[in-house]
Amino acid sequence: MSPDEARERFATARVARLATADAAGKPHVVPLVFALDDDTIYSAVDPKPKRTQDLKRLRNVAANPQVALLADHYVDDDWDVLWWVRADGVGRVLEASERAVELLRRRYAQYADAAPDGPVLAIEVRRWSGWHA
Amino acid sequence: MSPDEARERFATARVARLATADAAGKPHVVPLVFALDDDTIYSAVDPKPKRTQDLKRLRNVAANPQVALLADHYVDDDWDVLWWVRADGVGRVLEASERAVELLRRRYAQYADAAPDGPVLAIEVRRWSGWHA
Repeated sequence: MSPDEARERFATARVARLATADAAGKPHVVPLVFALDDDTIYSAVDPKPKRTQDLKRLRNVAANPQVALLADHYVDDDWDVLWWVRADGVGRVLEASERAVELLRRRYAQYADAAPDGPVLAIEVRRWSGWHA
Repeated sequence: MSPDEARERFATARVARLATADAAGKPHVVPLVFALDDDTIYSAVDPKPKRTQDLKRLRNVAANPQVALLADHYVDDDWDVLWWVRADGVGRVLEASERAVELLRRRYAQYADAAPDGPVLAIEVRRWSGWHA
């Protein structure tokens, strides 16, 4: 799959999975909603009670900025339509980002009611790749 | 979420995402089908042409056996039903495993027609965790 096609498919996904690793190389993976802005992927810490327990991804990015995100399509009874795309890049934790919040609110109705007000993860994608059946 | 509940939810998932990292701590993430056997998660390299390009996960596990797997439930229009569960563990690459192939064939009809004959990834789960809305 070409990088352009991988990027296009990623842009259509409503959820992605973020893989990070701590300074010792121990991997971590969480699902997240996101907005894509050119080659930057934004995600925000939700305005939810889980915030305090959910910062491992941010600590990992601060210690080791290398990240990978996956979007995929799985259908149990038809493996001929499967695809996945991966974005490999470098993450930064922003205390806030009006641009990210604007894009996320435009994309997810839930954020229109309760805008994320926590830190924002900004990932500069260096490589788009993917596979389809 | 209790470890037992996280494990039970993981067992019901049809697909998971595997996060590994190379020796330099660079993360990688791929979707995979799996079978759970007590606290061991098995996955196999599919009998498909992609095999040759798809071994990064195995090279990472050989270099750095720490892995994390995620199973999650995402519904775009109802964030009140979301959940995810994560299995943190230690991976090993097996040249073959009759037990793994038997469990995978029992779980996925596609493997009944074309059994995986490549290496098997066996992950001993050390920690089950999760979250639900």
